[in-house]
Parts: sequence; C-alpha cells; structure tokens
Amino acid sequence: MKPSIPKGTRDFSPAEMARRNYIFDTIRSVFKLYGFSPIETPAMENLSTLMGKYGEEGDKLLFKILNSGDFLRGVDKTLVDNPEGQWGKLTSQLCEKGLRYDLTVPFARFVVMHRNELQMPFKRYQIQPVWRADRPQKGRYREFYQCDADIVGSDSLINEVELLELIDEVFSRLQIRIAIKLNNRKVLAGIAELIGEPDKIIDITVAIDKLDKIGLEAVNAELAERGLSAGAIAALEPLLKIDGTVEERLNKLAELLANVETGKKGVEELREIVDGVKNLGLRAELDLDVSLARGLNYYTGAIIEVKALDVQIGSITGGGRYDNLTGVFGMPGLSGVGISFGADRIYDVLNQLNLYPADLLTGAKLLFLNMGASESAASMRMLSGIRRAGIAAEIYPDPAKMKKQMTYANAQNIPYVAIVGESEMTEGKMTLKNMQSGEQQLVSVEEAIEILK
Amino acid sequence: MKPSIPKGTRDFSPAEMARRNYIFDTIRSVFKLYGFSPIETPAMENLSTLMGKYGEEGDKLLFKILNSGDFLRGVDKTLVDNPEGQWGKLTSQLCEKGLRYDLTVPFARFVVMHRNELQMPFKRYQIQPVWRADRPQKGRYREFYQCDADIVGSDSLINEVELLELIDEVFSRLQIRIAIKLNNRKVLAGIAELIGEPDKIIDITVAIDKLDKIGLEAVNAELAERGLSAGAIAALEPLLKIDGTVEERLNKLAELLANVETGKKGVEELREIVDGVKNLGLRAELDLDVSLARGLNYYTGAIIEVKALDVQIGSITGGGRYDNLTGVFGMPGLSGVGISFGADRIYDVLNQLNLYPADLLTGAKLLFLNMGASESAASMRMLSGIRRAGIAAEIYPDPAKMKKQMTYANAQNIPYVAIVGESEMTEGKMTLKNMQSGEQQLVSVEEAIEILK
Repeated sequence: MKPSIPKGTRDFSPAEMARRNYIFDTIRSVFKLYGFSPIETPAMENLSTLMGKYGEEGDKLLFKILNSGDFLRGVDKTLVDNPEGQWGKLTSQLCEKGLRYDLTVPFARFVVMHRNELQMPFKRYQIQPVWRADRPQKGRYREFYQCDADIVGSDSLINEVELLELIDEVFSRLQIRIAIKLNNRKVLAGIAELIGEPDKIIDITVAIDKLDKIGLEAVNAELAERGLSAGAIAALEPLLKIDGTVEERLNKLAELLANVETGKKGVEELREIVDGVKNLGLRAELDLDVSLARGLNYYTGAIIEVKALDVQIGSITGGGRYDNLTGVFGMPGLSGVGISFGADRIYDVLNQLNLYPADLLTGAKLLFLNMGASESAASMRMLSGIRRAGIAAEIYPDPAKMKKQMTYANAQNIPYVAIVGESEMTEGKMTLKNMQSGEQQLVSVEEAIEILK
Repeated sequence: MKPSIPKGTRDFSPAEMARRNYIFDTIRSVFKLYGFSPIETPAMENLSTLMGKYGEEGDKLLFKILNSGDFLRGVDKTLVDNPEGQWGKLTSQLCEKGLRYDLTVPFARFVVMHRNELQMPFKRYQIQPVWRADRPQKGRYREFYQCDADIVGSDSLINEVELLELIDEVFSRLQIRIAIKLNNRKVLAGIAELIGEPDKIIDITVAIDKLDKIGLEAVNAELAERGLSAGAIAALEPLLKIDGTVEERLNKLAELLANVETGKKGVEELREIVDGVKNLGLRAELDLDVSLARGLNYYTGAIIEVKALDVQIGSITGGGRYDNLTGVFGMPGLSGVGISFGADRIYDVLNQLNLYPADLLTGAKLLFLNMGASESAASMRMLSGIRRAGIAAEIYPDPAKMKKQMTYANAQNIPYVAIVGESEMTEGKMTLKNMQSGEQQLVSVEEAIEILK
C-alpha cells in the first residue's frame, strides 16, 4: 500500500516549518506589540454554529463530521432513497459537527459564550488552521492557516487606524512591499441609493468587486444581467472612474454623495481613517477604491484589503468592520473590526521574492561523532554539559563510518562536530572541528561553550 | 439561538493560552536542544492510512469526514437498510477521510512518503492536536494536543538514553517531580515464553498492565479468563513480584530469563539503557516495572512511561521503540523510538500544583488613556514610538469615562498608563502613571521607553 494524503492538504518538512514559523512569529509578535491577546477555539464546531454564515456556497464547502456510533439512527430513510434537493436535510441528520471554515464565526461564538468573563473592548488574536472543501488548485488548499486580529466592543475608528498601522508593521518586517486598499460599506450603500437601486447593493458590490479583473464593460454587462437599469449603470460609471490622490478621491466622493446620508457618513469615516493614518505616517501605499467590496456581506463600515506590489497574487490580507456578527448568536449591538492575514499566500510571496532571512533553519550547533561504546559514553557526558548551557547539540547514535556521520552533519547544516577518541577521553576534552573552515582544536566543555555561544 | 461547542472540546482564553504556551514552549525548546526538527502533517488523513492501526476500538473512535458533494453516489443502499455488522463498510463508502488519532501513524506515513528527501537517522518533533471520539470525562477530551519526539533509522540504545534524559529535562524545567517507568517488550515476550504461553503475550500484557490499578488477584482472575493455565499463572507470579533496586531487579530478571533468548536480549537492552542513564545522572526516579505494557502492540523494545509523583493522574508521558511502524506502508525494516508528552494532563498537573511562573500573562505594558480626538492623535504618535522600541502598548479606543478606562487597565494587568492632556500635548510629553505605586511623572517618549524596558 502506497500512502498518500488527501488532496489539497500538505505535509511540512523542517525547512518549510522554519519558513512558516518565521511568518507566524512575525505576525504574532506584532499582534502582541499592539496589545492583542491569544485565544484558541476547537477545530470542530457544531454545524448549527457554522451553517448559513458563509452563504449557500459556503455551506457546501464545510467539511462535515459523520456522527459517531450508529449514525443512521433517526435518519429519515426516504431522504436516502430520494435525496434530490434535500442534501442539506440529510447531511444535518448524519452530521452534527463540522470543521471551522474561518476564525471569525468561531470568534463571534466565543465572544457570546464568554461574554461575562470578557473585559470590553476585547482585543484577541487567533492563529489556527481552517478547512474548506474547495476545489484544490495552485495556491488554494483545503487546510490553511488564518492569522486574525479583532477588536470587539468599540466603534471608535482609532481601531481601524491601529489595524492599518499593524498591517504596515507586519509587511515592513517581512520586507514585502504592499498597497492597502480601503473602502467603506456605507459608501457602497450610498452609491446604490444614489443610482436609485438601494435594494441591489449586493448585486452591485458583487459585480464591481470584479472591476480589477474583468474591466468596466464586463462589469456593466453583469450589472445589466443582475437587473440594473441602463440609467443606473450609466449613473454608476462616474463613481467607478473616480481617480487622483486619496484626498482628491475623497473630495469627489463627498461631492457626489453630498445628498445621500449613509454615503456621506461613509465618506466621513474614510476621511477620519485616512487622517489618522496620515498622522502616523505609514510606509505602505494607501489607496481608496470604491470598487472594493470583498464579497463579505457582514461588513458594515471599513473594508480593507492588502495587495503585494511585486507579485501577481490575490489579496494577502483583508478585513473590515462588522456591526452585527454576534447578533445571530443572540447578542446584538456589538461592533467589531478585524483583519485576517493569509499565511499561505504570504508564504508564496516570500518564496517567490526569496525574502527569507539567511539563518532560518536553526538546528543543532554541534554533533558529537560516535567512535564506539566507551567514547560515546564520555561524549554523552560532555553533550549534557553543552546542552545545559542552552546550546542545541546531538550525538550520532550509531558508531557508523565517519563519512556517513559527516554526511549527516552536512545535511543538517550543523556547523561544528566534536570528536572524542581515546586521547581526548584521557584529557577529558574534545576535538572541536569547524565544518566550514576545517579548523580543529582540542577544547574542554567550557571552552566549547564559549566558541559555540 | 444559544451557541455551544461540541462536547469534549474546549475554548482557550488568553489566561489559559498563556499557561498552555508555557508548556508547549518548554517542551519545544527542549526538543530543539536535543536536535529534533519540527514537522507538521494535515489534520485530515485518508481513512486507509488510519484504519486498522489502533485496533478495532480505535477504528470506532476515529472522527470520519463525510465525503463532499453527492456523498451517496456509489453507496450500496442495501447497507443503509441493513447496516448490522457492516458499519465499517458503510462508513468507508460515505467517508474517505478522518481526523488524525495520534501523531505516530501520520509520522510513519510521512517518513514513507518523503523517504527520498530524509537524511537518516531522522529526528523529528511534532506538536499538534489529535481527535478521538472517546466518551468525554474529567481530564479526557475529544480534541487534545500531543507533543511527540521520535528518532527513526537508528537502532542504537543511545536514542533511548537521550529520550530519558530529555524527559528528565522537560519535567525538571516544569518543576514536576516524576518517576520514569521502564520495561522492554522482549522481556514481556520472554516471560510469556518462560511460562509456556508464547502465543498469549497480548493477553498477558493487557492483563498485567492493570496490576497497579486492580491488584494481583484480579490480574490472575483475568489471566485465567483469557485462557492461561493455572500453572502458567503460578509461574508468572514470581516475575510480577520482583522487587528491590533497579540493579537488583535486573539481576533477578536476568536469572529468571537466563534460558529464554528473547527475554535475555530484553534484559541486556534494559541494562544498557539503565547504565547509559546512570552515566548521565538523571534527577528523576528510574523504576523498572515488568508489568508495564502500555497496551500498544507496535512496541518491540523499550517501553517508557512517566508518572507525576505529587498528583494522582494517569501517565503524563509515554513511548517506546517500534521496529516495524512503516512496514504497513510498504517500508519494512526501519526502526524507531519515540515519546509523547500529554500536554493536557501536564496542564492539569501544573494547575493542581500551581506551578506556573508568576509573570506568565504578558500583555501590554502601557495603556494610553483616551482624553478626546486631538489628545488621542498626539497619543497615537507617541504610542508608535513606544512600540517601535519593541514595547507592547495600547490606546483605549474610545474617549470613555476615566473610571472605565482604568478598569480596563486593571483587568488587563497593564502596569502603566499614560495620560496626554492639553498641557502634555504642549510639551510633547506624557504623564506616566505606575498603576501599582500610583506614582506619576511627566516624561518624553524616550524616557518612557527607558522606564518600561
């Protein structure tokens, strides 16, 4: 039997782990710097928590866990014979639990369940894998990590400003040049109202979200298909064509939306965020983009998206404000804002640009060669001393040929080997060899520690 | 709708995360110190990889993932109507994937799949959750973490000695007093042979494994029930009653098993490990226990188990040598030895003994109070400077009542608050207040950094 792993999933080797941990550690340390605290939630959630939160398509992409034991008990057998159109019903009889699809819904569930223990505003970060039964393709996996930071219990726009500064800090540390795109759901709502189609805001956002990819003409075609009148489509065009600096765009938007209350509020919020960011001076490019919608209907205010400037790839971070995420779990009126770093896409970007620090793989610094039973007993006592000083070190477990042992040291990138033969044993010392220079010296454990430190 | 989480699973709050990360970080840093490299494998494995590896009971405890899409396609409907005795067959038609049950089988699968990229001996560690559909009870969860270290590709007993030293180091760092129990599968096989029941080794080990819990009489009753002759049971007794120091036990065992080849080999291995450990001087108690079997049939040599001395709880770490774990995946003849730390039981032990360091929860060191729009803009510039020095700090996002803001600082254990009012703004400084002493001083950002460092 030749073993394999499920499609869309991956093993990570030590070298890949070092690269991934570099990303996670960078993001985590910035999260902490900004005062976010870690939480974790279970991989499995009740399906009642997950279903209906990601749209109809999302429901299908949830991985569902077959109930344990007699999983057919209570199942309506007529559904089995004739499931057409009733897959959802049949599934929910066979499965009570599913794997989490993102970190946002479990976080909302967490906040509601632990409301009495939490001090608001609550700033949490969470770095865990999520699972989606998507068709696997290049850069899209069925198991991947999200790195989320959210603040709930405060509607101050200072939170948005802080999150933008945090994004700037993370990518600056990773040396990835980025543009941050900014929009506001209220501006989108205002636009829909302005062109006389307030009920079509979802259709409008879904269509104009593709502007970058498919161009204005195709967007207009899709809008017509979605039932927008020719007049509305024509009225939308000048809004999509707004250009200039962020300031200029804000002014034009303010002008166009002057008589639409929601839209005006959205422009004011955008201006406050832009001013707040200017006060701090970001390194990243900040870009106002009224076509940015991110397809997520739970956003109610700011919408944020990050693009890498030097690699062709989808957004590598995104987020926004939501005013009612916990409402569905019986806790209305709690506002929140958050961002999610896509670790796997960031990994691809760093790989393509080769931006990893040179000394990432930090294995053992020293390998004791194995010269036989009594020699290795003496080596192991020295090895304990080396490790007690906090220096990662190993002994080759078998008295194999020298060539084989040296090959191991080289393959593991171990910079020093120690040889303890008969004469070294007599002196209570080791011959320490620098693998790069070839230089050898007879040293005590204490001297070796000084060299290896 | 009142949200909940699946039984046997847990949320972890920031305070719990700090405690858990203390455990994981301790174990991880010792793993690294001993030259182990990290890998990760997917949460989902093909059921063909998992099934049959944990016994019949284990197969039932696997969480299985319902196939996506039309999951009834190809399913034998007669099984649905009459599943009795064919649950396994029906399940495997409905599900291709399952959640991993431990880290050992996925590791064996990993080694076989990546054999051409791996340098032997391969020393890997892996810290990831596993899932079991066990009946939840105190201290037993359906999602819990394992922390494994294994060496494959070497049959040297130096590996066993190193793992015992590693265990000693981890628990010494965690300040948990432990006893390490040691046995050898070959000794068990030798005993079975000696008492004339070589084919009953599994029955014997399963029964005597319970000696500690149920006592000799009950064990003997179980052995009889499992078909052992009265003579064999009588012959077994002196072996189970061996006592004295480790040395004395080894000598008695050697005497009793002198004419049984396998048993003799097991005693020799035990002696070599005991001598190796004595050479290094462990802090933990080392205990030879011929009744130790750990119920895992894949062990072929050393069997290791760790008990906490000051808390009544099951084993908190276990492991052993296996000679044929990869054989089932088509790669025979690869020997390995490994240990697994049970993070959740260790967590319970540390909680009961209250052994956590005092300063575990390391949130922000400074909170800027929010005195209004222009004050907070000035505060945020200072805050950026504080963070640039690597000091975790926050600003209260809303201009709330002072009492509320101070309550937040106290709840978050933030040791300093900064006040930037009109006079501070004029001077470009902040009033820094020590929350414990109440002491206040007017300082620049640079001076604040010096104090907070």
